[in-house]
Amino acid sequence: MHARLRGIFPPIPTSFDSSGDIDTHAITANVTRWMSTRLSGVLALGSNGEASLLDESESDYVLAAARQAVPSSKLLIAGTGRESTRATIDASRRAADLGADAVLVRPPAYYKNQMTNAALIDHFKRVADASPVPVLLYNLPATGVVLTLPVVAALAKHPNVAGMKETSPELERLGQFAAIRPEFAVLSGWAPVIYPAIGLGAAGGILAVANVLPDRCVDLYEHARAGRHDQALALQRAITPLAQMVSSIHGIAGLKVALTHLGFSVGPCRGPLQALPETVRTTITRAVDALKN
Amino acid sequence: MHARLRGIFPPIPTSFDSSGDIDTHAITANVTRWMSTRLSGVLALGSNGEASLLDESESDYVLAAARQAVPSSKLLIAGTGRESTRATIDASRRAADLGADAVLVRPPAYYKNQMTNAALIDHFKRVADASPVPVLLYNLPATGVVLTLPVVAALAKHPNVAGMKETSPELERLGQFAAIRPEFAVLSGWAPVIYPAIGLGAAGGILAVANVLPDRCVDLYEHARAGRHDQALALQRAITPLAQMVSSIHGIAGLKVALTHLGFSVGPCRGPLQALPETVRTTITRAVDALKN
Amino acid sequence: MHARLRGIFPPIPTSFDSSGDIDTHAITANVTRWMSTRLSGVLALGSNGEASLLDESESDYVLAAARQAVPSSKLLIAGTGRESTRATIDASRRAADLGADAVLVRPPAYYKNQMTNAALIDHFKRVADASPVPVLLYNLPATGVVLTLPVVAALAKHPNVAGMKETSPELERLGQFAAIRPEFAVLSGWAPVIYPAIGLGAAGGILAVANVLPDRCVDLYEHARAGRHDQALALQRAITPLAQMVSSIHGIAGLKVALTHLGFSVGPCRGPLQALPETVRTTITRAVDALKN
Amino acid sequence: MHARLRGIFPPIPTSFDSSGDIDTHAITANVTRWMSTRLSGVLALGSNGEASLLDESESDYVLAAARQAVPSSKLLIAGTGRESTRATIDASRRAADLGADAVLVRPPAYYKNQMTNAALIDHFKRVADASPVPVLLYNLPATGVVLTLPVVAALAKHPNVAGMKETSPELERLGQFAAIRPEFAVLSGWAPVIYPAIGLGAAGGILAVANVLPDRCVDLYEHARAGRHDQALALQRAITPLAQMVSSIHGIAGLKVALTHLGFSVGPCRGPLQALPETVRTTITRAVDALKN
Repeated sequence: MHARLRGIFPPIPTSFDSSGDIDTHAITANVTRWMSTRLSGVLALGSNGEASLLDESESDYVLAAARQAVPSSKLLIAGTGRESTRATIDASRRAADLGADAVLVRPPAYYKNQMTNAALIDHFKRVADASPVPVLLYNLPATGVVLTLPVVAALAKHPNVAGMKETSPELERLGQFAAIRPEFAVLSGWAPVIYPAIGLGAAGGILAVANVLPDRCVDLYEHARAGRHDQALALQRAITPLAQMVSSIHGIAGLKVALTHLGFSVGPCRGPLQALPETVRTTITRAVDALKN
Repeated sequence: MHARLRGIFPPIPTSFDSSGDIDTHAITANVTRWMSTRLSGVLALGSNGEASLLDESESDYVLAAARQAVPSSKLLIAGTGRESTRATIDASRRAADLGADAVLVRPPAYYKNQMTNAALIDHFKRVADASPVPVLLYNLPATGVVLTLPVVAALAKHPNVAGMKETSPELERLGQFAAIRPEFAVLSGWAPVIYPAIGLGAAGGILAVANVLPDRCVDLYEHARAGRHDQALALQRAITPLAQMVSSIHGIAGLKVALTHLGFSVGPCRGPLQALPETVRTTITRAVDALKN
Repeated sequence: MHARLRGIFPPIPTSFDSSGDIDTHAITANVTRWMSTRLSGVLALGSNGEASLLDESESDYVLAAARQAVPSSKLLIAGTGRESTRATIDASRRAADLGADAVLVRPPAYYKNQMTNAALIDHFKRVADASPVPVLLYNLPATGVVLTLPVVAALAKHPNVAGMKETSPELERLGQFAAIRPEFAVLSGWAPVIYPAIGLGAAGGILAVANVLPDRCVDLYEHARAGRHDQALALQRAITPLAQMVSSIHGIAGLKVALTHLGFSVGPCRGPLQALPETVRTTITRAVDALKN
Repeated sequence: MHARLRGIFPPIPTSFDSSGDIDTHAITANVTRWMSTRLSGVLALGSNGEASLLDESESDYVLAAARQAVPSSKLLIAGTGRESTRATIDASRRAADLGADAVLVRPPAYYKNQMTNAALIDHFKRVADASPVPVLLYNLPATGVVLTLPVVAALAKHPNVAGMKETSPELERLGQFAAIRPEFAVLSGWAPVIYPAIGLGAAGGILAVANVLPDRCVDLYEHARAGRHDQALALQRAITPLAQMVSSIHGIAGLKVALTHLGFSVGPCRGPLQALPETVRTTITRAVDALKN
């Protein structure tokens, strides 16, 4: 698996129709378009996929729709983290049945005070034992639960844990994770530091902005791997402001504005996420126009 | 409604059987026992009810089981907060159908950076518009999303918002909420400050320790309301260490140890929550023995 | 000492003249005016005294000026916390020489990661051993260092530690501290919760708003002690908005606006603290006018 | 100036003698030894120099002692940040008089709630206007005050602001600062990310571990600048564990253990900083032995 966990993956948004329901045709069409680029695959049902706003059957429809458009040469990664161990295992099994190549599992965070290292290790081990496909750990410190080196190092020994996504601008941790062993693939989830993350040993990235600028993100990855410092730094600086707009600043609403502008059919966000005001939308679409090929 | 939102309510745990499934008979039996005391009702499907670890149909079974044992003179409050507005509305309607007298709605927290005051007000307004029964706001700062005075004051004007639960040791906010208007009932969710919270105008409390020591908690509430300072302070100090053990320190696992010791059938916690070590269990049961009537 | 650590103390601001230097005559005049009320004494060189913006000799001038106007029946408390143990001891000795009745010592916070419980206990013990006058601990969680129950309980045994100031809206900790032993006096530093703090066993308060409304603050303290709940709650609610303006919201600049309006000579704040805009100043002075006797 | 703000600088510790007083001879001797390497200069009176634990005259002695040993081809940078604008200006003028080539100014943090962007800009502008030598901004988010892009971009226009130190594992901000303009030098203060920081445009680093391993740190800097990725990554990984021990984990006490082991005369830390237990000291000295040339 780790040889395929390389390069750039977009965490795809979930398309909704005008009734607010899942639009599976749009999802398949969007993924087809992304898969015509040099992206290494897609992540469906990640944070950018509004996974926490979908019910279980909707989640399954999204995966089935994405699977139709991801060729076997590329990876379909499915977000399957839930608050309970039991529901996470169930979602991982269903994802594997629907053709996911790997599952990405965020840590439970509702009872964060009880999420000791021992509880986290136990949770992920049970999921990795039960999942028919390889598991990727998902470190998302914004939830208030942080996977630290002892936890990740313990879990990286499990034969069914293939790597992780580290979503943070904080690279000290990522550097430690990437040094655990060569076969443990660390993917960065923070576009403004993707170039330096690769310098520290990251295998690639799962980046919201890669939905918008797939080829430029792959170019950046390749410059970084090839040691073309000046080109990598220039491209990093070029994409960073837009990456912030479609992620940390405006979130999924920003991402959907950018994608709608490019002709993707994604629909609005589901509440409680709000639509963006006109002036913000204009700022985003101008930034897209300035960067698209 | 606000005349009934007074006094002490236990946030009841969800009973599991040896297979890890919901034990509805146990729930009904437990609630019957709690309702034989001076408690004002119960909260089912709160944080202490492991609500985030249940699926939708399990949630319904819990409510139906509790409803059987709550007399019409007391209140059945149901936790119905979900991450999406749509799912929260759906859960609130089902709870009303199952006989809940009111719903308690925590704010969405997964996309916490996007949870502006405007987004929170919009979310709760839509839920209050759609819910067949009165809505209680649930402030739980530990999630990373805080309902502040402007949000609560705006929502308190809605005819279907009856009050709130404030779960924090921080009483400046609670004092502001309690001063909004007399008909807006503020219930404290933090037992170690329940006496001073009543001094600041709280209408009562929803307290994990009230599952364990129902009459003592009601005594404390009544001492506080009657201005019996010395007795209230003494009782506050007496229950605080156990209240911490079954809540902030050991969480639901601690609560279930205490209740099992008293003969309630609650079963273990669902993963990722972990069982407690023997020494901790002994500390808790001794504290229970020292305080029970 | 503990019998005198009762009631309300204002943390007095430091007066500056038009050159930005200490105005000792103004300080003496202001303290004379405060001491004509029912306040129990004053705190000089606290956070509200801009202590961290003064040099060592300026600190001495402030104390000497205050001492002249505090009668022996009331207490002069001096803030003497510094980042190093050595400088804290030196400042405490000088304060005692200048006539301070007690010293209030905040924990070092610059190297907060190294401020383990052991380091904090060692620091305060050395200071208490060396100080010629009783020491009050100063818990100010906003600095990033929190004195927790084990630390305070250990230090409360020291014969030269007389009590503490707890500056936080969080009353669970205050309740624990107040229960340590009757002779250990806990003063609250958070006016919006002073009534419930007294309910939990606080001996009184050190409150910025007591500079502005000394008699109303003393009234509130006395209502609370006498169990006059309705009057205490009404007065708590009346003073809270102004208390927030001259403390958590606008800080010392807000306090100096209110005091200047009442005819105290306090001058501007020292940089980096900034003057407030006209509209804010007007809001504050109107709130003062509405509340002053 | 910016042409000289390149490469690696150690933030030197302050040497104390057995009485706990400043040992100026030891400081001069230590700096002489560091200056015999390829380091670009030194920072005296930084956080690692226990600057907040020294009085004003001690600070001057440290600078005078360091100046004697820093050749004119290298830089002596002096930490001169104080809580008040007035004291910061005074310290900066004295540092310039004592021969400092530049001053490094941390933001005031005691009144962190009042440290708005406007207050921070005003503070640093006044200091830059008054300082006879160039000013470097010091971003130290651990203090609770963060210099964000708008503040740094505004200050970078001042002719007497030459650059900054960014002390954080968080590289998104550093990348933005480094892109402001080529003449604005950004030095990283976080050794575990120094290689990727250079990738993002940092001009070098001010690193505690550079006191211990000066040549290896300079090698890492040079590999990074020359695009020798494999060597840079290997060296980054080699030094990171020791860098953590002498900085984020054990702080200055850890640094002093390592330096004492190498024959530098630094003495103990000043209280409230504590000595380390024997087992920790052994871990540190073994790590030093494994890495020293």
